[in-house]
This record gives sequence, C-alpha cells and structure tokens, in this order.
Amino acid sequence: MRRVGIVDTTFARHDMARDAMDELKQLCSVKLERRTVPGIKDLPVEAKRMLDQGCDIVMAFGMPGAAPIDKQCAHEASLGLIWAQQLTGKHVIEVFVFEDEATSEKELAALAEARAREHARNVYRLLFKPEELTKLAGTGQREGGPDAGPLRR
Amino acid sequence: MRRVGIVDTTFARHDMARDAMDELKQLCSVKLERRTVPGIKDLPVEAKRMLDQGCDIVMAFGMPGAAPIDKQCAHEASLGLIWAQQLTGKHVIEVFVFEDEATSEKELAALAEARAREHARNVYRLLFKPEELTKLAGTGQREGGPDAGPLRR
Amino acid sequence: MRRVGIVDTTFARHDMARDAMDELKQLCSVKLERRTVPGIKDLPVEAKRMLDQGCDIVMAFGMPGAAPIDKQCAHEASLGLIWAQQLTGKHVIEVFVFEDEATSEKELAALAEARAREHARNVYRLLFKPEELTKLAGTGQREGGPDAGPLRR
Amino acid sequence: MRRVGIVDTTFARHDMARDAMDELKQLCSVKLERRTVPGIKDLPVEAKRMLDQGCDIVMAFGMPGAAPIDKQCAHEASLGLIWAQQLTGKHVIEVFVFEDEATSEKELAALAEARAREHARNVYRLLFKPEELTKLAGTGQREGGPDAGPLRR
Amino acid sequence: MRRVGIVDTTFARHDMARDAMDELKQLCSVKLERRTVPGIKDLPVEAKRMLDQGCDIVMAFGMPGAAPIDKQCAHEASLGLIWAQQLTGKHVIEVFVFEDEATSEKELAALAEARAREHARNVYRLLFKPEELTKLAGTGQREGGPDAGPLRR
Repeated sequence: MRRVGIVDTTFARHDMARDAMDELKQLCSVKLERRTVPGIKDLPVEAKRMLDQGCDIVMAFGMPGAAPIDKQCAHEASLGLIWAQQLTGKHVIEVFVFEDEATSEKELAALAEARAREHARNVYRLLFKPEELTKLAGTGQREGGPDAGPLRR
Repeated sequence: MRRVGIVDTTFARHDMARDAMDELKQLCSVKLERRTVPGIKDLPVEAKRMLDQGCDIVMAFGMPGAAPIDKQCAHEASLGLIWAQQLTGKHVIEVFVFEDEATSEKELAALAEARAREHARNVYRLLFKPEELTKLAGTGQREGGPDAGPLRR
Repeated sequence: MRRVGIVDTTFARHDMARDAMDELKQLCSVKLERRTVPGIKDLPVEAKRMLDQGCDIVMAFGMPGAAPIDKQCAHEASLGLIWAQQLTGKHVIEVFVFEDEATSEKELAALAEARAREHARNVYRLLFKPEELTKLAGTGQREGGPDAGPLRR
Repeated sequence: MRRVGIVDTTFARHDMARDAMDELKQLCSVKLERRTVPGIKDLPVEAKRMLDQGCDIVMAFGMPGAAPIDKQCAHEASLGLIWAQQLTGKHVIEVFVFEDEATSEKELAALAEARAREHARNVYRLLFKPEELTKLAGTGQREGGPDAGPLRR
Repeated sequence: MRRVGIVDTTFARHDMARDAMDELKQLCSVKLERRTVPGIKDLPVEAKRMLDQGCDIVMAFGMPGAAPIDKQCAHEASLGLIWAQQLTGKHVIEVFVFEDEATSEKELAALAEARAREHARNVYRLLFKPEELTKLAGTGQREGGPDAGPLRR
C-alpha cells in the first residue's frame, strides 16, 4: 500500500491535515502517517525524514501570518520543501494558506479546508491517476477557490 | 533517439506544452515524455525525476499570477529548477509567462504560445545545433516577443 | 540519554540559552551541550557540527536588529539552519527574537525569555511527546506571546 | 595548457565573450572553449558542465534587463553560479552588465566591453598571477568603470 | 599549528585583511594563508578551497557598495559563505562593511579596521577560547562599533 506522509504545525489556526486525511480516505486506500511540528520552518526536515523513511509523497500544511516577516518565513519554508524534494526525488505538496487571503476567520477556515481537500485530490492523482492531471494541464486550476480557467483567445 | 521531458502545470491557463511539442515535432525527431503537476513549485522535483530517468533535457512550463506572492513562488520554482540542473548536469529550459506580461487574455495566450515555440527551438539547438546558439550570442534574442537586437555603437 | 545542542550568539542582548536550558532541566533529563558564536550567520555551521557530533536536536538562538540588513542576515541564517537540517535529517529549532518585536527593553527581554522557554517545551515534545504536538495541531500556538487560537467558523 | 570556459547568452545585446577572448589571447596562452545558452538562468548548469569536463575556470556573461523580474532572474542565476563553484571547487567569474547601468546603447556597449576585458584580466591573474590580485586588495577596483580607489583616512 | 585562511577582494576600499592579520599575530600563533579575489561573489569558492586544503577557519572580507544591487550581491555572497561552511563543517567568519555604514571615508575606514580586528579576536576565541564566547553570550556585542549591551529588565 502507498504511504502518504502528513506534516502540519501547531502555529496554524485550522486543522487542514484532518480535512486532507478525510478526503484521501474517501478517494483511495493509502497508509497515512502524521507528524506535527511547531512552525512552517520545521516542516522541511520532517518532510524529508518521512520520505527517507519510506513515504511515497508528503503533504505539508502551514498557515503563515500576514506580516512581512511571515512571508519571509514562508519563503524559507518553501525553499526547504523544494530541497527536500530534490534530495529524495519525491513530491512534497505544499498546502499553505496565508492569513491575509480572506477577510474573516470563517472565510479563511473555509478556504483552508477547501484547499486541503483539493490538494488531497492532487496527491491522489499524482499517485494513481497522473493522466488526469495532464487532462487538466493549462486549464487554470485554483485549489481552494474558483478556477481561473483557460485563457480565452 | 534523444529524450525530451515536458513538465507543466494545471495552474497555467494555456497549454504551452502542446505548442512546444508541436514545434519540436516539426524541427526534429525526439522522444517526448510529458508529466503534469499542480503548480510551479512542483516542477523542480518532476524535472529532476525525468532527468534522472534518462531524459536529455527538460522543458518546464509555468504561468505565475500577477500578485507579489506569485512572484515569490516563481522565484522559488526557478531556484529549484536551477538546483535540479546542478544535481543532474543537464539543462532545464524554464518557460514561464507571467499573467501581467500582457493586457488581454488573447494577447497573453499568443505570447505564451510564441514563447513556448521559440524555447522549443532553443531546446532543438541545445541538443543538435549548439553552433547556431553561438551565432546568435549577444544579439538580444527575446523569446515570445520582438527581439531587442544588438546594441548600436 | 538524549543530547540537546544549544547554540547562541554574543550579538544577542538577552541570554535566551540560559532560559531554555533551565526550562529543559525542569521538563526532562537530557544531556545539554552549549556553544556560542559571534552572530546569527555563524549559527548554521555550529548547529550542523553539533548534530554531526551526535546531538539529537539543536536549539539556535538569535536576536536580529531592526534594520533591513538585519532582516536579510536573519533570512540567510534561517536558510542555513534549514540546510543543516536537510543535511543531517534532524531538527534545529530556531528561536529568533527581532529587536522591533517590542517597544521597550524590558518587554523585549520578557518576550525573549518566554519564547525561549516555550520552544524548550517544543524540543521536549519533539523528543519525548510527539503526540502532544499533534493534539495542538492547527490551534494557533504562538511562542512567547498570547496564542492566536483556532479560527472561529 | 590551462582551459578557460566561456559561456554567454543569446539574450545579451553585446558579444562580451568575443571581447574577453580577445583580451585573454593577448594576455596568455590558454585553451578557450565557448558555449552559448538562451538566457542567464541557463548559465549555471553550462558552467558546471564545463568545469566538470576539465575547464580550470569559467567566465559567465549576461546582460539582464532593467525590470524587477530581470533583477530577480539575475539573482537566481548568480546563486546558481555560486553553487556551481561550491560543487566543483573552481572559480566562475560572473560578468553581468545590467541594462540600466548606462543611459545610451553606445555607452552600455562600451561598458560591457570594458568590463569583459577587465574581468578577462582577473581570470588571467587568478590562473597565473594571484600575487597581483593581493597587491590590489582593498584598492577599490571597479571592472568597466573608473576605480573607486582606497578610502582616504 | 592551526591554519587561518584569509580571503579578501580588490573591490574593497580598505585592506581589512592586513588589520585582521596584524591583530591575529598579536593574539596567537597561527599559520596565516591569504588569497585575494575580484569581488565578494568570488569569496565563497575561495573560502571553500582553503577549508578543503586544510585551513581550520577562514575570514572573508568584503565591502559592498550602497546601491540595491550591491546589497543583492552581498546577500548572494553571504549565502555562498554559509554553504561553504555547511559543506566543510568549518567556520567562515564574514567581515562585511557596507559603504553606507558611515558618512565619511575616514569614518568608514576606521569602522572597517575596528570590525576586522574585533572579528580576528572572534576567530582567536573560536579556535582557542570558546568559553570566552559563552561568557559573552547575550551581551549585545557589536564588532566595530559600541556594543549594544544586554537588555535592561
């Protein structure tokens, strides 16, 4: 059975990991392994450890704040997640929701859940249905929001 | 036969991979392999995997949005693509079109297609006609737009 | 016995390492090893050395100034700490306090101590109680300040 | 005989490689090898390949545009060139001229040629006369423009 | 005898390497090895080479200009120096003085000399007296200027 690593933070304000695991369970039969770290900059090494220990793919969840320093932390975490992928040759699907992406807590939680679920579907496709992704190539998919759609010529 | 990897995203709003593959088929006989990932930050590891699995070169297509966070994502993806090249010793031709490079959807699609086709020609030259690139050295080539041309002294 | 590396700087204006070591001693029995370097950009290699020499985890303390160049130094140090983790497969808990996070020296010192102590608890959890972190996943923890709490739906 | 790699772009608007090769031929007897790539982000892997294939040093020429995105591309290319050096233990002399460094095309071409020639001299010194560089240490050399000179105390 | 590598640039406008070597000779008996490169982006590979060739520690001196592009170059050089340390497991003490840190050439030269000498003392401590650094932990040391001192509670 394929193994999917799930790593998230105590810093985030919504339990996106739960949403994604729920979605994955509905989509397919995989072994789920979960770890939680304090903040987004702790995600890259935990993702690498899970991939080194046999996970086929990892989902990394984070919810950076809205201040400039938070964007910088997210940037550092993203680079770390890309290195983890380069060193292991496996995908890490980054699921970050920025606090300033919505104007109310309710809206932000809904966005976080929707993005977590849509990215769980991406993980399912990467593992089992890569041809579905190619069918969607260039169609302006947006995880958690309305799709942008293909450009009209 | 030389193998060319093609990796693109479901996020992009135009199927640049199709344009580039069409162009390559007209220019030369190569084996094309295509993968699609969700977003531009997923491109680097997929490019590395294809190079590790025997592709001689990879084209990586992306269409980042116009917001500051999109520029940051593009920056992270670009660094990841450069690492993939350093680790494999092979070229990855990045074909990114930013949503704010044009003022209408029609214009943006035309730019995306033109850039994809011109970079396909670059891939052809890197594989089969490196001397053509040297003839063009310092001549202000611009993929997808009018060339800037050499400086007038 | 588990070994915890502690690395801090002469640049910082508060002895956060002492606070964290005091907290750790109250929480658990671990072997503490301490090194001090001049500034935050010297932290990454010292952290890597300690991890290579057998520490199970490292805490890295720094207090960057408020000027743009200080933020850039902190960014470089953070990236270096992430690389150290990628290369060793072990956690480095970064405990940085920016000088502009408080308006008085007294307040800044209190924040630094509180953050150091809370991150010591994170280290304890990562080593001995990972399930406690997962219980806190998505609950908006903030080390050193009032927690943000989970989003209200 | 020492081997000097020369890598430049079709994007640049002046043939700096030719200037540098001309200068090097006047200064010393080395084997010159030249490759051309599309843009500056393609330079790092080509530099690494040449160093891996036996070049003792590489000169990398680029002429980024004046827009913010061009500065970002130059930043990414520069980091890639630094990685190529770290991985090979050999120097890559980056010769970048930004389009906004001069106000006319004529002036920019003159600057590009002067910088290319002065950096060719740096390559000559690194290979054959390192003691000449140490004599110039801290003297405010500026390749392509008037030297800043040492600080007056 | 311990070996200390010294690497500086022809771009800098003050011979900080000389100041640091003078200070080191007064403090301890070490073998000094010096190399000079054109600019700060050439420092990382030279530092790595010296560490690979047996130096126990390296001091890297640079004096970036005041323009945004100079800050970017300094950022790239700093990251390169951090990588050199990660790859070798040895310290590189970065001694950078920015041209806009002082308002007159005289003041800038004095700052550069003071910083070079104070960092030479840091190198001495890292090699021979690490316990002195720990005594200074969290005391707000500032190389080249008045110390900030510890926070008053």
